[in-house]
Amino acid sequence: MATYKIAIDTQGSDKGPATIVQGALMALAENPELSIVLFGDSQVIKAELAKAEYDHDRIEIVHAPDTITNYDNPMEAIFKKTDSSLVKALQALAARDDLLGLINAGSTGALIAGALRYVPAKPLRRPALAAILPAAKGGFTCLVDTGANIDCTASMLVEFAHMGSDLMKQCYAIENPRVGLLSNGAEETKGNKLVKETHVLLKADAELNFVGNIEGTNALSGDCDVLVADGFAGNQVLKNSEGIAKRIITDIVVYGKKTGNPEIMKLVGYLMSIYDFNSLGGAQLLGTGKPIIKAHGAANADSIKNTSAIMLNVARNKAMFDGKDHR
Amino acid sequence: MATYKIAIDTQGSDKGPATIVQGALMALAENPELSIVLFGDSQVIKAELAKAEYDHDRIEIVHAPDTITNYDNPMEAIFKKTDSSLVKALQALAARDDLLGLINAGSTGALIAGALRYVPAKPLRRPALAAILPAAKGGFTCLVDTGANIDCTASMLVEFAHMGSDLMKQCYAIENPRVGLLSNGAEETKGNKLVKETHVLLKADAELNFVGNIEGTNALSGDCDVLVADGFAGNQVLKNSEGIAKRIITDIVVYGKKTGNPEIMKLVGYLMSIYDFNSLGGAQLLGTGKPIIKAHGAANADSIKNTSAIMLNVARNKAMFDGKDHR
Repeated sequence: MATYKIAIDTQGSDKGPATIVQGALMALAENPELSIVLFGDSQVIKAELAKAEYDHDRIEIVHAPDTITNYDNPMEAIFKKTDSSLVKALQALAARDDLLGLINAGSTGALIAGALRYVPAKPLRRPALAAILPAAKGGFTCLVDTGANIDCTASMLVEFAHMGSDLMKQCYAIENPRVGLLSNGAEETKGNKLVKETHVLLKADAELNFVGNIEGTNALSGDCDVLVADGFAGNQVLKNSEGIAKRIITDIVVYGKKTGNPEIMKLVGYLMSIYDFNSLGGAQLLGTGKPIIKAHGAANADSIKNTSAIMLNVARNKAMFDGKDHR
Repeated sequence: MATYKIAIDTQGSDKGPATIVQGALMALAENPELSIVLFGDSQVIKAELAKAEYDHDRIEIVHAPDTITNYDNPMEAIFKKTDSSLVKALQALAARDDLLGLINAGSTGALIAGALRYVPAKPLRRPALAAILPAAKGGFTCLVDTGANIDCTASMLVEFAHMGSDLMKQCYAIENPRVGLLSNGAEETKGNKLVKETHVLLKADAELNFVGNIEGTNALSGDCDVLVADGFAGNQVLKNSEGIAKRIITDIVVYGKKTGNPEIMKLVGYLMSIYDFNSLGGAQLLGTGKPIIKAHGAANADSIKNTSAIMLNVARNKAMFDGKDHR
C-alpha cells in the first residue's frame, strides 16, 4: 500500500530517543497508511527497534550522531551542528518530495531558526507557533501565536490570522475559517492598544472571515476556528488552560481515591483524553514551506503517537486541498 | 453582640435588588458577627425583607432612589447621579467610621471612578482590580490587575505588587506575601518588554518579597501569594481559568447524566464549591481608602452571601493587623 511518509527527529527531547522511537512504533501500528523516517543515532534507534515487531518497509533510519539541546544557542547550533538530527531532518524535508512533514520535540528556538534556514515559505513569512486545541462544541481551535513572537505589532497579528486560516483550510478541511481576536471583552471597544489597532486591520481584511473579539472565558468555546493573540497572551491562554485542567483532574483523582468509586476513575480517563495537553500533540509551526510540528519537550510515547496521527491527517487533508496525492 | 458593619449596594446588578437583598439575608443568617447597611430603593428593599425572618438590629436601610447602570458614562454618573445608591454608599463609606467596607455588583467603571472621588487612598493611588483566587495548595492567590488598567507601564505593575502585598498582609493575615510576575516562562530572561522591565524593578524593591516569574501553567499553583500582571494579561488568566473550569464541569455533568452514577453528581457539587468563580466572591478594588469588593455583575444570592463573608473576614483581619477592633 502507498503510504504517507513523515520525518521524526528522535533527539533533543527531555525523555530521550527511546521514548520517541516507541511513540513512532505505536503510531505505525495504529495507522497502516503511515511511514516514518527516524533521524538520530542509528545504533540507539536500531537497539530500540530490535525490541519490537513492526513492518520494516514503513521505517527508514537516517543516521545523525549529533544533538541540538536546549542549552545550545539556536541560531549558532543550526549553522554549526550540521551533523545533528535536526539539521539532517530539515535538510531532508526540504530536499525530498516524499517527506510530507517533520515532528521534533527538542529546542523550539532551534526548530524555528532551522525551519527559516532550510524550509522557508515562499514568499518568506514570519514563523509563529499555533496550538490546535479541542473546542467545546467539537472540532478544533487554532490558537496563534503561543510563544514564538512575544512582542508583536498589529501587522504581525494580521499575518498570524492569515497563516492560521491557511492551516485550518489546508490541513483541517475548514472551508472559511472564522478568525477571532483575543481581547479582554467581546465589544469592539475593548482591548489593549495592540488589540484595538489589530481589530481595525482584521475588520478591513477582505480575505479573512473575521468574527470579532473573543474574551478569555470563550477562548476555547468554539466561537472561532482561529484565535489570534500576541505570543505573550497566547502563551497565557495555552499554559493556563493546561494548568487549570491538570489541577481539576488531580482534584478528581484525590476525590476518587477517597470515595473508592470506580466510575470516578473512568471519568478521569475520559477527561484526560480531552484535556491532557501533553499528549494532545504539540504546536504546529506556521510560516514554513512544509508542515512542522513541535511536540512537547516532555512528550511521552503516547504524545508522539498522537502527534504522528495529527501529521498524517495534515498530509491527507493537504492532499485533498491541493488535489495532489503525495503518497 | 458587637458586630462588623458593611455596606451593600442593592442596585445596578444584572439580577436586580431582590437577589442582592436575599444574599445579604443569607449572609446575616450564617454570620452572627455581621451587620449590613443596604443602599437602594427602600420600598423595594422593605418588600423583600418582609418575606423573611431576620435580626432587625443587624439591618439598616439607606434610601437612594436612583441607579447607575452599565449604560451610564461612569465619570459623568458619579458626578451627576448624586441620588444613586452607589454614590450614597460611597459617601457613607467615607463619612461613617462604623462602615468597614462596601460591596457592589454594578458598573465596574463607575465603582472605580466613584471610589477615587469619594474614598481615595492617602496618599492617592491608582485603582486596580484584584481577584482572590483559590490556590492549588490551599489558601489564596491575589491576581492583580484583572482588568482595571489595560495598557500598563512597569511602574504601574510595581504599584500593583505593593497594593496586592498590602491586601494580603492586612486582610488575609499573610506575613510576608510572596510576589510573582506573570510571564511566558519562569526564567528571568523570559517575558515581553513590559515584563522584563518590571522584573528588574521588582527584584530591586527591598520592600517586596519577589519570588520571580510565574508561567501560566502555575498561575494558581500557590507558588506566590500575589501574582502581578497588566490588566490585559491578568484578565486572560482570570477569565480563561473560569472558562476552562466551567467547561470541564459541564463535561462531567453530561458524563454523570449518561452513567446515572450519583457519585458523579456529588463530585460536581464539590468542584463547583472550588471552581465556580461566579459564586467565589468577586474582585477586590485596590488603591482605595477602605475595602471595596466588586461582585460579579451576574452575582446570584449565594455569591453575595460569599462576598459578604469575605468582607467580614477582611474587616476581622484588618482589626488584627492595625490593633483596632472596628466593631
